[in-house]
Amino acid sequence: MHVFDIAPVRYTDGTMLILDQTRLPGEEVYIEIETKEAVFEAIQKLRVRGAPAIGVAAAYGLYVAVRDFPETGDLVEFAKMLQEAGTYLAAARPTAVNLSWAITRMQTRFTEQQPKSVGEAKALLFAEAEAIRAEDEAACYAMGAHGLSLLKPGMGILTHCNAGTIATARYGTCLSPIYLGQERGYGFRVFADETRPLLQGARLTSWELSKAGVDVTLICDNMASIVMKNGWIDAVVTGCDRMAANGDGANKIGTSGVAILAKAYGIPFYMYVPTSTIDLETATGDDIIIEERDGEEIYRMWYEKPMAPAGIKTYNPAFDVTKAEYITAVITEKGIVRPPYGENLKKLLK
Amino acid sequence: MHVFDIAPVRYTDGTMLILDQTRLPGEEVYIEIETKEAVFEAIQKLRVRGAPAIGVAAAYGLYVAVRDFPETGDLVEFAKMLQEAGTYLAAARPTAVNLSWAITRMQTRFTEQQPKSVGEAKALLFAEAEAIRAEDEAACYAMGAHGLSLLKPGMGILTHCNAGTIATARYGTCLSPIYLGQERGYGFRVFADETRPLLQGARLTSWELSKAGVDVTLICDNMASIVMKNGWIDAVVTGCDRMAANGDGANKIGTSGVAILAKAYGIPFYMYVPTSTIDLETATGDDIIIEERDGEEIYRMWYEKPMAPAGIKTYNPAFDVTKAEYITAVITEKGIVRPPYGENLKKLLK
Repeated sequence: MHVFDIAPVRYTDGTMLILDQTRLPGEEVYIEIETKEAVFEAIQKLRVRGAPAIGVAAAYGLYVAVRDFPETGDLVEFAKMLQEAGTYLAAARPTAVNLSWAITRMQTRFTEQQPKSVGEAKALLFAEAEAIRAEDEAACYAMGAHGLSLLKPGMGILTHCNAGTIATARYGTCLSPIYLGQERGYGFRVFADETRPLLQGARLTSWELSKAGVDVTLICDNMASIVMKNGWIDAVVTGCDRMAANGDGANKIGTSGVAILAKAYGIPFYMYVPTSTIDLETATGDDIIIEERDGEEIYRMWYEKPMAPAGIKTYNPAFDVTKAEYITAVITEKGIVRPPYGENLKKLLK
Repeated sequence: MHVFDIAPVRYTDGTMLILDQTRLPGEEVYIEIETKEAVFEAIQKLRVRGAPAIGVAAAYGLYVAVRDFPETGDLVEFAKMLQEAGTYLAAARPTAVNLSWAITRMQTRFTEQQPKSVGEAKALLFAEAEAIRAEDEAACYAMGAHGLSLLKPGMGILTHCNAGTIATARYGTCLSPIYLGQERGYGFRVFADETRPLLQGARLTSWELSKAGVDVTLICDNMASIVMKNGWIDAVVTGCDRMAANGDGANKIGTSGVAILAKAYGIPFYMYVPTSTIDLETATGDDIIIEERDGEEIYRMWYEKPMAPAGIKTYNPAFDVTKAEYITAVITEKGIVRPPYGENLKKLLK
């Protein structure tokens, strides 16, 4: 099976499927989505995760919510149903920006196009969901193509967390160049940080890369330094959740440490940043608020028994900010951005 | 209960007790050791761990092995029994240097002192075991006192792995200044890296520090960067397994990364190095062979189910080498050593 058959969300032959990422890597199960309740549950329970993949799931999910409305039914009733389903789905993960973005885009399309029948409205919405998926796929492919130009065959590449094909419509952001390189026989040797506490590297990245036949080695986060020292790493690639106007980039906890190590060892650090993630309204990384999560993720989740004394104090930030000075280049779907980022990110988005 | 009541190995009122560290942090169980087989098992199964603590366990264990020999018995028979018990115990963890060191020291003492009776021999051996324990305790206390001179009340301190009271006779190496500071009301705020894959920080360090009333916060290894960036860390303290003549220090995997981050953030990095750990015969850290362990420690051990795809490739080094340039000072029981280490370590050991 080729890796690009592992789309996290798909709609084929009238059926919507979501890859249940909570059951990876043990089981590869695709859930058939037949109701809006099922989409809601899948998003809320993180069966589908990654901002772009959530957007795609929401778009198809909204279509699923209204697809059984009678073709000869009342268009006003249909519009009301669409509105209500959107409000319902948006509540599945309120902080996921792509979720509300995709729903609003679907609803706006319906409003602006003013379809003349329920049949026309449904076709319109399905086409918009397809467009959302296709656009993300194209953006990921473009990021991969740009990013690949910075890499050479046989290189060792370190990655952190999962900004892969299953977090997007397809290809992933920072894993995209690895897949494009794999197709061209580049023979990359990839090292995947396990990424505590939620283990996205162990559970997801090592799963999707190994499935695609990529040479991948799983390590603990605290082994990034020794693999760099061993001379095994030629480039670091990571995703980005939000980039400030000065080029500071927030991403999964631990990213900033990897970037600092890369600089110390003279290894380029490439951050993959869809332009939708660049926030020129935020001046620097210091203005980005870091979500803190439950400490049980650190000492209880996954484990057979608690791994710390009862009542232990924890600090469990979900993200950290990598300062612009540690980022060698920013890879977007529109091209590669080099420092000074304050100037060049603005130019890119013009 | 005061922390210094948590000795990992003790011999009181005719009874040898070992704290079963494999049951921490869930249960605090002391095993009564009545036979050499029980000591062997405790060392082999890592119920007692940490080089100095293993040495103390071996010394008392060897005494336990011969203590029931009849007082009026034959001294030649006694010597034979002592020899055999030593050979037996040394096999419990062949790579643990302190194990064979302690056994040899006990046997040598017996040989050199030429006791005239079994009773005298037993007293001699018990005294030697006590001396081994007391000397380690004194060395740890001295390291703590020297190290404390580098710290100020209220400081934030990051530590990695467990070089604490339960890895030594008492006080620990790098945790010793924290306990001494605690007694003086310094109010340190300690951050403990969980230390993957074996979680010594989560299971052991956070346990012993919180038990002593120290303000300790557990974090994942990949959060060291953000706590430093937050301005919460004024000093990093770690242990050391082996230091080369040039000051490169091998310690638990991940230590080198923490040291590089500390330098990037302008935070001093202090390595606690008993002089017995300094190996002037090894020129640099490149000459230290790094033990690689089973990958299952990364993706299966502790977990309810495997956390990576079956057959995934892993790299699981147990140690890494922190280059001398990242070590602000080396704390030994004989005093503090500053760069240039090549010169100053040699002076110290003269």
